[in-house]
Amino acid sequence: MSPDGLAVQTAAPAGQRVTRRSRRAVDVPVLVERAREGDARSVARLISLVEDASPALREVAEALAPHTGQAQVLGLTGSPGVGKSTTTTALVRALRATGKRVGVLAVDPSSPFSGGALLGDRVRMQDHAGDSGVYIRSMASRGHLGGLSWSTPQAMRVLDAAGCDVVLVETVGVGQSELEIASLADTTLVLVAPGMGDGIQAAKAGILEVADLFVVNKADRDGADTTVRDLRYMLSLGGRHSEAGHWRPPIVKTVASRGTDNGIDRVLEAVEAHREWLESSGEGRRRRGERAAREIEAIALAALRERMGDVHGSAALGALAGKVVAGESDPYRAADELLDQL
Amino acid sequence: MSPDGLAVQTAAPAGQRVTRRSRRAVDVPVLVERAREGDARSVARLISLVEDASPALREVAEALAPHTGQAQVLGLTGSPGVGKSTTTTALVRALRATGKRVGVLAVDPSSPFSGGALLGDRVRMQDHAGDSGVYIRSMASRGHLGGLSWSTPQAMRVLDAAGCDVVLVETVGVGQSELEIASLADTTLVLVAPGMGDGIQAAKAGILEVADLFVVNKADRDGADTTVRDLRYMLSLGGRHSEAGHWRPPIVKTVASRGTDNGIDRVLEAVEAHREWLESSGEGRRRRGERAAREIEAIALAALRERMGDVHGSAALGALAGKVVAGESDPYRAADELLDQL
Repeated sequence: MSPDGLAVQTAAPAGQRVTRRSRRAVDVPVLVERAREGDARSVARLISLVEDASPALREVAEALAPHTGQAQVLGLTGSPGVGKSTTTTALVRALRATGKRVGVLAVDPSSPFSGGALLGDRVRMQDHAGDSGVYIRSMASRGHLGGLSWSTPQAMRVLDAAGCDVVLVETVGVGQSELEIASLADTTLVLVAPGMGDGIQAAKAGILEVADLFVVNKADRDGADTTVRDLRYMLSLGGRHSEAGHWRPPIVKTVASRGTDNGIDRVLEAVEAHREWLESSGEGRRRRGERAAREIEAIALAALRERMGDVHGSAALGALAGKVVAGESDPYRAADELLDQL
Repeated sequence: MSPDGLAVQTAAPAGQRVTRRSRRAVDVPVLVERAREGDARSVARLISLVEDASPALREVAEALAPHTGQAQVLGLTGSPGVGKSTTTTALVRALRATGKRVGVLAVDPSSPFSGGALLGDRVRMQDHAGDSGVYIRSMASRGHLGGLSWSTPQAMRVLDAAGCDVVLVETVGVGQSELEIASLADTTLVLVAPGMGDGIQAAKAGILEVADLFVVNKADRDGADTTVRDLRYMLSLGGRHSEAGHWRPPIVKTVASRGTDNGIDRVLEAVEAHREWLESSGEGRRRRGERAAREIEAIALAALRERMGDVHGSAALGALAGKVVAGESDPYRAADELLDQL
């Protein structure tokens, strides 16, 4: 068992080994079948395939599709230092206690390096493997402006297809990423800590709009009640909790230090209440539809960029550029002609 | 005359007035004709049209095309505080003294607000109008990551068509923008100042690769010779100056404080030498072709994004997203189908 009493399998990138393997033919259906049977190596392999945008990516996506749509996706975000990793660990332990299979994607958008460092921590848990009900994976951010990696939704799909009842996506709350996580998650948990001015920061960053649930962590510290009051006041200004048919984000206090899961059960109760509301209100279906639509659009745009890339340096573009330089055409007409050739 | 003895017309955005006018029909051919006759208001109006991406943008681009390709484009970049604005002013005065018509685009990518502040300074020069040979325009940055505004190449075209012999694009040197300016300019001038560690910074940022000419400004300060030596050493490491057929970036010392144009003539001599090299080596033609190609690609990509935008929220995308949510399709197949519908 790991120091905090949690035994996990780590669906960690296998580094060099995977890279070498990628050059060989991949038997995707076998990988998916094994992943569904609970084989952590196959889950890791599939995530690496989608993360590396390997040639097998499309085949993987197709093979996963029939098995997806079951997992409940929880987003967890908050400023550095509020206790996200500890809370994640506590949530995983509590979920496992109810028999649920859990996948964790830890995305650190602020630094590709700390993503690696975090991974180091997690890998150590692997030594205590034995619980096939938990997959933990750190993902580097490759998006713009500290956003979530574009491959995060694909990795979510792998964990979903592998039979995870809950997929937890943990991000450092820096600007953009909180808003992105909200678009990916069924339920977005925003962690704040007393005395960090997080309430005001949250209001500024638009967090109030995206949080489905506030967790005031380190609630044994001075100022916890003030933080709760501040959040409640700001939510009331937003008018969200007073509208009928709308979800009123609960505020739950926790002390999720290692070994002490004080408050985590109430967090899970609130998550469950939100899940029920998502279903009864139809908002859950709307969010999943919106999430899929955004994913499709992003992939389509990437494909268009790729086609443009093929054009870059081509004779056709060179000829069009020559006409613009000579004043025989303008860049807009040339762009039209370029698009006609795609 | 302005305090530094330079009389200019300011092709400044006319703010509210332009916005109101934009709603009326625009007689583009008349505007272009007047701009070519030296009417500063028409030049300003045309730049506003391309900057606002007005409906007339394509018509403007088409009308400008036959009159472009004459201007020599100089890029001027460097860290804050090295004296870019003072150097720009000195360069403009020296170019005017040789009878050349000059356009200046001041792009401040680090802040849209300081762009406005700079504009304030420049507008004051307008009171001393009378020299129809200079247009100065501040442009806000709208690009990603502090890059150059996407409309900068279009504004360059306006000044080119308006008969400017030289278009000077001034940017604050923060990361990305230096590399972008190099892709726009015929000749890129990198300003450094003694004792700012700029030499090392330059090496780090890849400036050595893009500079066609180094200007060590404030050369009356201690450490100027050390800075020159450092630059020379780092250039020698890069091996650029030793390759036959390659341009060896000269290093010119200036003291371009107001009223003292010490060294500016040598800068212009070096610029002229570079222009001759661009012509004789064919590099100038290559750069202009590359610049036009990048512009065409950027416009084409923006157009594709726009078409994607039309799809966003459409019934077709909704249906595709529904199939993905239901596990009947995967995001990649859905993206293909979406693109087929474009």
